[in-house]
Amino acid sequence: MKEFMGQDFLLETATASHLYHDFSEKMPLIDYHCHLSPKEIYEDRRFSNISDVWFGGEQPDGSYYGDHYKWRLMRSNAIPEQEIVGRDDDFKRFYDFACTLEKCIGNPMYHWCNLELHRFFGIKEALNRRNAREIFDKCNDMLANDPECTARGFIRKSNVYYVGTTDDPIDTLEWHEKIAADDTMPCIVRPSYRPDKAINITKEGFADYLLKLAKSVGKEALTTTQEVCDALVQRAEFFRDHGCVASDHGIDYMMFRPAPMEEADAALKKVLAGETITTEEAEKFQTQVMLALGRAYHRLGIVMEIHYGALRNGNERMFRKEGPDTGFDCVAITDSGKALVAFMSELDKNGELPKTVLFSLNGGDNMMLDTILGLFQSDEVPGKIQHGPAWWFCDTKSGMEDHMKSLANLSVLGNFIGMLTDSRSFLSYPRHEYFRRITCNFIGNLVENGEYPADDESLKEIVEGISFYNAKRYFGI
Amino acid sequence: MKEFMGQDFLLETATASHLYHDFSEKMPLIDYHCHLSPKEIYEDRRFSNISDVWFGGEQPDGSYYGDHYKWRLMRSNAIPEQEIVGRDDDFKRFYDFACTLEKCIGNPMYHWCNLELHRFFGIKEALNRRNAREIFDKCNDMLANDPECTARGFIRKSNVYYVGTTDDPIDTLEWHEKIAADDTMPCIVRPSYRPDKAINITKEGFADYLLKLAKSVGKEALTTTQEVCDALVQRAEFFRDHGCVASDHGIDYMMFRPAPMEEADAALKKVLAGETITTEEAEKFQTQVMLALGRAYHRLGIVMEIHYGALRNGNERMFRKEGPDTGFDCVAITDSGKALVAFMSELDKNGELPKTVLFSLNGGDNMMLDTILGLFQSDEVPGKIQHGPAWWFCDTKSGMEDHMKSLANLSVLGNFIGMLTDSRSFLSYPRHEYFRRITCNFIGNLVENGEYPADDESLKEIVEGISFYNAKRYFGI
Amino acid sequence: MKEFMGQDFLLETATASHLYHDFSEKMPLIDYHCHLSPKEIYEDRRFSNISDVWFGGEQPDGSYYGDHYKWRLMRSNAIPEQEIVGRDDDFKRFYDFACTLEKCIGNPMYHWCNLELHRFFGIKEALNRRNAREIFDKCNDMLANDPECTARGFIRKSNVYYVGTTDDPIDTLEWHEKIAADDTMPCIVRPSYRPDKAINITKEGFADYLLKLAKSVGKEALTTTQEVCDALVQRAEFFRDHGCVASDHGIDYMMFRPAPMEEADAALKKVLAGETITTEEAEKFQTQVMLALGRAYHRLGIVMEIHYGALRNGNERMFRKEGPDTGFDCVAITDSGKALVAFMSELDKNGELPKTVLFSLNGGDNMMLDTILGLFQSDEVPGKIQHGPAWWFCDTKSGMEDHMKSLANLSVLGNFIGMLTDSRSFLSYPRHEYFRRITCNFIGNLVENGEYPADDESLKEIVEGISFYNAKRYFGI
Repeated sequence: MKEFMGQDFLLETATASHLYHDFSEKMPLIDYHCHLSPKEIYEDRRFSNISDVWFGGEQPDGSYYGDHYKWRLMRSNAIPEQEIVGRDDDFKRFYDFACTLEKCIGNPMYHWCNLELHRFFGIKEALNRRNAREIFDKCNDMLANDPECTARGFIRKSNVYYVGTTDDPIDTLEWHEKIAADDTMPCIVRPSYRPDKAINITKEGFADYLLKLAKSVGKEALTTTQEVCDALVQRAEFFRDHGCVASDHGIDYMMFRPAPMEEADAALKKVLAGETITTEEAEKFQTQVMLALGRAYHRLGIVMEIHYGALRNGNERMFRKEGPDTGFDCVAITDSGKALVAFMSELDKNGELPKTVLFSLNGGDNMMLDTILGLFQSDEVPGKIQHGPAWWFCDTKSGMEDHMKSLANLSVLGNFIGMLTDSRSFLSYPRHEYFRRITCNFIGNLVENGEYPADDESLKEIVEGISFYNAKRYFGI
Repeated sequence: MKEFMGQDFLLETATASHLYHDFSEKMPLIDYHCHLSPKEIYEDRRFSNISDVWFGGEQPDGSYYGDHYKWRLMRSNAIPEQEIVGRDDDFKRFYDFACTLEKCIGNPMYHWCNLELHRFFGIKEALNRRNAREIFDKCNDMLANDPECTARGFIRKSNVYYVGTTDDPIDTLEWHEKIAADDTMPCIVRPSYRPDKAINITKEGFADYLLKLAKSVGKEALTTTQEVCDALVQRAEFFRDHGCVASDHGIDYMMFRPAPMEEADAALKKVLAGETITTEEAEKFQTQVMLALGRAYHRLGIVMEIHYGALRNGNERMFRKEGPDTGFDCVAITDSGKALVAFMSELDKNGELPKTVLFSLNGGDNMMLDTILGLFQSDEVPGKIQHGPAWWFCDTKSGMEDHMKSLANLSVLGNFIGMLTDSRSFLSYPRHEYFRRITCNFIGNLVENGEYPADDESLKEIVEGISFYNAKRYFGI
Repeated sequence: MKEFMGQDFLLETATASHLYHDFSEKMPLIDYHCHLSPKEIYEDRRFSNISDVWFGGEQPDGSYYGDHYKWRLMRSNAIPEQEIVGRDDDFKRFYDFACTLEKCIGNPMYHWCNLELHRFFGIKEALNRRNAREIFDKCNDMLANDPECTARGFIRKSNVYYVGTTDDPIDTLEWHEKIAADDTMPCIVRPSYRPDKAINITKEGFADYLLKLAKSVGKEALTTTQEVCDALVQRAEFFRDHGCVASDHGIDYMMFRPAPMEEADAALKKVLAGETITTEEAEKFQTQVMLALGRAYHRLGIVMEIHYGALRNGNERMFRKEGPDTGFDCVAITDSGKALVAFMSELDKNGELPKTVLFSLNGGDNMMLDTILGLFQSDEVPGKIQHGPAWWFCDTKSGMEDHMKSLANLSVLGNFIGMLTDSRSFLSYPRHEYFRRITCNFIGNLVENGEYPADDESLKEIVEGISFYNAKRYFGI
């Protein structure tokens, strides 16, 4: 029996262990898509206690913020909602989480949580109901007193080379400016461009958002699709001037409905007048905006990330109570393939397809996506079109293995740009370690099994590439 | 090489063997969804020969009844239909089935059949053409002479704690009453409520069925949707009074089309007048009935099971000849996610969502379902919303592994309510053993692989929970 | 660690090794679906150099022909298109392909290419940038000088029993006639019937093709659906007279839209008049033609192969430049199940369903297809309805394993007709070896794991059946 989460955790063979410890582990991290706060990085935030870091909860302004992966598990274990997101008794929810986690055999949270406790707080035992008190106290002591237990400390300890935050086009990027001017930063930190609010034309708050977007480009209002596109492109340029190398689109499904600009305008006009529009009308507007942004990204050298396949806010009662991103999303099975292909083909036709990273929340799309990649590769950069790493609900051991197996089967695994955390927490970097161990194990098995030669020169290049160099080259950082 | 179907069958590691033999194997069985006949249980039926038990066939009334899993295999091996479902020569079909089974390497039927022969008839060799005669004779001898080779004997031998049969709302439950009054029953036996015939508004026989349903609540006819709902709810109450703890819905796909009651009524009126209705019209009626039943289940404490994703009776010629449930169904790829979420959200909005168990016949839905669970959990009971065990065509070794892997990845595996047989046969209990071995192997691998600590206290709780206690708590039995 | 691609490549257990080396390896090959040129077989073509064999490229007539699997990999590694399909420097592209292949860990091309080099050219090292020159020279030397390095030589060396080429209904089959008359052929070679061009009513060139089809049956034109059907059936009879045992349909998705013949005719008339038709109109025509052909195949004893699930020519720019079959296709997620079932049910209703082999490009359809098989089996032949082996993008180690696991779970694995190459190259026969090793490993694991008895009599029958005898019986060759 293998030691629990020991030195060779997830590394089943000698080759896997060699690849991880001699190559992958030594590489710095590139976290090219996450939700860290640049303000907290700049201010080097310190946390009040481990429940605050791990669970967050209801904020003073009535909003909810925290790790909804953990909230979901607690809900599945019949912990009352008030305890989960409330802050009445931080130890009680830590204890109840520990009780829950014990039952989560096979869940990546089991590993992530225990890796975080080990790597950042030196705790070697798995968290359970019996040691919950001791671990709670130890973490809190370190959070209060250890000078390295801060935002920047965690980044430093994790050997991070690059952090790409997720920012709204209307953001002033003031914190990014401060970061850029600060010599003491432990890593490169850059904004990423996420214009979802300007594309979600049927969602509440769209019209208000357009006013803010207008203001950010010095206008009163945006009343045509072209004006919206222009404003977004202008902000993308502003982002690029602040070092942005990546954009990010979170959409329910991929749409592609090309139509004359007037039809897109008609949809926009209706919405601005407070009317309801059909899905078809919405898609005409969205297609125009996506195309305009795609072209701009290509011109500006910004990578386009597309995340699709979530059904969001599925529990209406809880959405009303807690708002979005509180753990009430699920996998949607969508038919996005045709639209993705048509969209990319339209851009490629005129040589305007940017570097693109595709993500679906539905693991069943792996094979389709991995074959789509091959349609649009070019000699601009190896692996110009990428299948992003296993995302969100797919971001599990088996999800990563499935992703890599499919990518290896259908594309050039050696050009994969590897992992990101997509996380809101400064403690999430062990997910990179998790990914790297799984990757090295996957590759190690192929070698041990006689399916690839034990050729260290090639293996080093592949492993270091996926761990670090491919992303560095791809994003140009 | 491991012994064929030996002591540690499907248990690849020492931990798996320990978990199975020391914990899981000792637990009684809860078979919360099956198709056994309460009459046969009460009368302690005895069977004429092994072909009768295993294959059944054409009944005296011209209907077809038997194990269509076995029929399918024989058809795939070019055995003539007349032999498969006819009863001309019970040994010949047993022999031809043995020849077929030899070729079924990797099929769960290979294991189920041989487990049944071993566990109930003491036959240690795998069935094949060479020993078919001997095994046929031995089984028949025991079926004729062994006092424990009867319906109740098989139940006793299998250490069954609970059997939930599947019953029509119009059933008088007379056999269940007799069972309840019988002190000598080897286990708890309760009815389950399956109102499909009142929901399948577009299927033949619907109008006739409504008349029977009306009669069961002392009415002449049911002419409005509300009347149908009321009758169904009244019968659900009757079932609850007879100990029913679970309902069961077998639907092609999940629909959710809320509409004013008058529109549902319009659909019903057309059908009662012999007219054809559109899918959309049907869904308006069905949505109302499903909502009414969901609310009733919640109020009555009845678990709601939803089975979807089958394309039934796909071979028109054979359907005409043999009727439904004769092995001519296949997996349908449906888009049921959105409707499931909307349906459950609608009930949850008013605190009326019952405990729910979701089943899809399409293994590709695992991930979607496992993320849907998380939307509606609550503090009523751990794992209020469950993903039912791998069902029907998914009920294979790899199907169960995939199901558990996905459930573990995305939810709290330790709260899983575990296995059921869904079977028409008294010999099917070894499927629980099959499931338990696979479960212990799955969990054992995680421990051996260093992914969960070798903490016997937690492991015992998890394994005994999935084997027995979780279902006991969940159904309140 | 196992030797790279050694004697027991892909054979993880002693049983697997025994099954492969003692049974499977000794069987001749049946390649019942490929794209070899009968002319090249008859003329015993010799190749100019290994790049020509492996990559092909732009042809003198401006068309593109070659192994698009390799083209895709090179594109993914940023090799310029001109180099990939051009023929300026055959060594440079061989070298750049070697560099690419090094990064393709886990890709079946890695194995196929190295198996080809080993089995046909005696090269024992894996191809890489360091040995690319040496290997290039050695292959070219053999291609120029070795008398067995020719089309027929490769066939002979591979112990091929049967080759089924893919031919257009209008083909005169002159090369097949020459082959049939040639006593020195190393194997049976027969035409297969592929009438896609007459069914793709919405694709460019359809009207022109109908004129050619008319001519092939001695008519001026075909102006009704019935005339098209009659012409196609007449050509199928002609093919059958030339030994054809299989047909092949490559369709985007399966359609089934029965309608009166006049409606199919209306669609045809529009298209012949140069008008655009709707998908629905097209499907009416297509359904009639598919039904007519299905009936004819049944009468003539021709197997019907249906390949669906590709989204073809997704990159418009490249399609315009290089045409079809140049590596710009991807997996489509289609909803073909219902239509497949309805189509087959319609034929079966009148006893006119031919032997049928189903292939989907989407591995996610495995389970659905394996359950559809069971709807239409009969006593004509064991496994009358087959799920064809993992196809195109699925034709990987894990794709084959998934296919077999699903087939074993849901049908009778022992009746599977096994592998084909679907290839345009005379060097592709090692794909059969690849498949056989994976099959023997899959079966061997079941035995070693105690899931099937170590009964050599049954195992030999199963393994030799899948390797050779099942296809021989199924196609009647």
